[in-house]
Amino acid sequence: MPRTAAYAAHTAKAPLQPFTVERREPGSRDVVLDILFCGVCHSDLHQARDEWGNGIFPMVPGHEIVGRVSAVGSEVRRFKPGELAAVGCMVDSCRDCSQCRSGREQFCERGMALTYNGTEMDRKTPTYGGYSSRIVVREEFVLRLPEGLEPSAAAPLLCAGITTYSPLRRFNCKPGDRVGVLGLGGLGHMAVKLAAAMGAEVTMLSSSRAKEADARRLGAHAFELTRDGAAFKKLGGRFDLLVDTISAPHDLNQELGLLRPEGTLVLVGAPPEPTPVSAFSLILANRRLAGSLIGGVAETQEMLDFCGKHRIVSEIELIPIQKINEAYERLVKGDVRYRFVIDLASLEGR
Amino acid sequence: MPRTAAYAAHTAKAPLQPFTVERREPGSRDVVLDILFCGVCHSDLHQARDEWGNGIFPMVPGHEIVGRVSAVGSEVRRFKPGELAAVGCMVDSCRDCSQCRSGREQFCERGMALTYNGTEMDRKTPTYGGYSSRIVVREEFVLRLPEGLEPSAAAPLLCAGITTYSPLRRFNCKPGDRVGVLGLGGLGHMAVKLAAAMGAEVTMLSSSRAKEADARRLGAHAFELTRDGAAFKKLGGRFDLLVDTISAPHDLNQELGLLRPEGTLVLVGAPPEPTPVSAFSLILANRRLAGSLIGGVAETQEMLDFCGKHRIVSEIELIPIQKINEAYERLVKGDVRYRFVIDLASLEGR
Repeated sequence: MPRTAAYAAHTAKAPLQPFTVERREPGSRDVVLDILFCGVCHSDLHQARDEWGNGIFPMVPGHEIVGRVSAVGSEVRRFKPGELAAVGCMVDSCRDCSQCRSGREQFCERGMALTYNGTEMDRKTPTYGGYSSRIVVREEFVLRLPEGLEPSAAAPLLCAGITTYSPLRRFNCKPGDRVGVLGLGGLGHMAVKLAAAMGAEVTMLSSSRAKEADARRLGAHAFELTRDGAAFKKLGGRFDLLVDTISAPHDLNQELGLLRPEGTLVLVGAPPEPTPVSAFSLILANRRLAGSLIGGVAETQEMLDFCGKHRIVSEIELIPIQKINEAYERLVKGDVRYRFVIDLASLEGR
Repeated sequence: MPRTAAYAAHTAKAPLQPFTVERREPGSRDVVLDILFCGVCHSDLHQARDEWGNGIFPMVPGHEIVGRVSAVGSEVRRFKPGELAAVGCMVDSCRDCSQCRSGREQFCERGMALTYNGTEMDRKTPTYGGYSSRIVVREEFVLRLPEGLEPSAAAPLLCAGITTYSPLRRFNCKPGDRVGVLGLGGLGHMAVKLAAAMGAEVTMLSSSRAKEADARRLGAHAFELTRDGAAFKKLGGRFDLLVDTISAPHDLNQELGLLRPEGTLVLVGAPPEPTPVSAFSLILANRRLAGSLIGGVAETQEMLDFCGKHRIVSEIELIPIQKINEAYERLVKGDVRYRFVIDLASLEGR
């Protein structure tokens, strides 16, 4: 297996720079992907800067991967060379525990193998992500990319897409439901598109009036400015489901008040510090506060198929890999509409 | 309609004393109950002392009412004089909104009529509870008491029973599930009995070793001391469902860590102050934090029928009404196993 060109953070404090990784020789169940595009998730930045701790360096980020199959192992049946395929946040799991068997590989009892900043299931071999020219992944963790989706704009579906699709499905988003989305960024803009495609009446709740036109263009039926406390009063008890994509500290009790009895507020953005929650906010209307982490493999394929059917992709800004450090700076400022995607054709030495 | 003997808090600071209330003449859909027993809920004390604010005085507490039907209106079909019957936390609702129509009268869009410290649906006539000799309630809000349950010990089912039964059902407690109950008091002891009767493997989580023998006698299969932080480590990811009955401040993130992926922690006790909740506690295993408020009328009847079938009642200490102020003092200290019930035969002037 030739050595693979990549970009890596060599240490937590260093900007990303060219790097070379060794990919394994493909086994009988492996798929080799020539990476075409890789989305830039906010978690790439957190991990490359070791803001969550436990970073493994050098680190090649990237878990929103779209590529073309260049080779398959002898026992691979679902993929052929030349086809488009995708890889998300996981590249393996034990495939045997009750969580894996029920399609929740992200909660594998032995711990999933993260696509980067993790290890293979041998718990030794480090994993390197999609800021590279090639990846070798077990067939079970490779996704089919539906026809008709622009591959570059489909890349963010692999994390931002499934992160918002999974809770919408789990909490039974259906035609006529009133769904509110908090925050219009990489996750929020996918939540709006997906909830609207599921038939919900979607309201964008944002602290910035400047987001209104975009929110409506993306499919939101209504827009409410959250900076104005009056919105929380006016909309009290209105929503069946709220998807909160905000990672800055904010008031969850105010949000809970927006839910109808037995409604759910699901967090997919994580403020760094614990947030005070009033038991009364939950008890007085049987409300629920939930969290949601990506999705299982089958569910990710279901999401891609749903997006294929409804022609849903991410809104992206395509960048060459050489602009990744600049893109990170812009990401910190929220200056992206709504996802950077790296064009790996720009990577030298591929 | 003769005037009705009762005990009331005349003001927020006053001990309860004899009082006389006017009950309405029964209408065509009303049931008149001669009250036999009334449970003493912790919320009686909070409201009689106006600790939640908005108390309506004089206040006759009591919403765990068991009595004998003494008269029925001309259109009442489900009850006959001489039968045992019961009344819980509500005596009416609009019976017409989407919540009422879906059997969640406690979330009536116009506001339920609380059994006491509230008003009838005219929003003027104050309601007086079960610390009295007689009550007049619309047929729809009167429950049948199953054969074979000791009426005095069945009284607490009307609040403590439904408060714990409803979330166990809603979160699908079933044979083999691992259910943890936090706190062994009026609510906790009912949660243990009900979850065990539903076939769950029940663990009592308590800060007091002294509760172990009782917990096991009530049906718990295991006991864990929460004062010992090690229990939280040992039991991490173990439970399908946790029912938290603790109203003192405590650490919810520690509890969330006890849940398996997609498990639920449901609050039925309400600490007075908001509690810090970490988004990561919820997100990293798709966990849910929920609240639950009593239950609807049909669900309350279902709970009573379930208790009749499984011979479940509360553990009680029967007191004469003259001991109510002393009982409140003991309640503050947690000195009751596990519910005071007033024997209304003790009430003079009935």
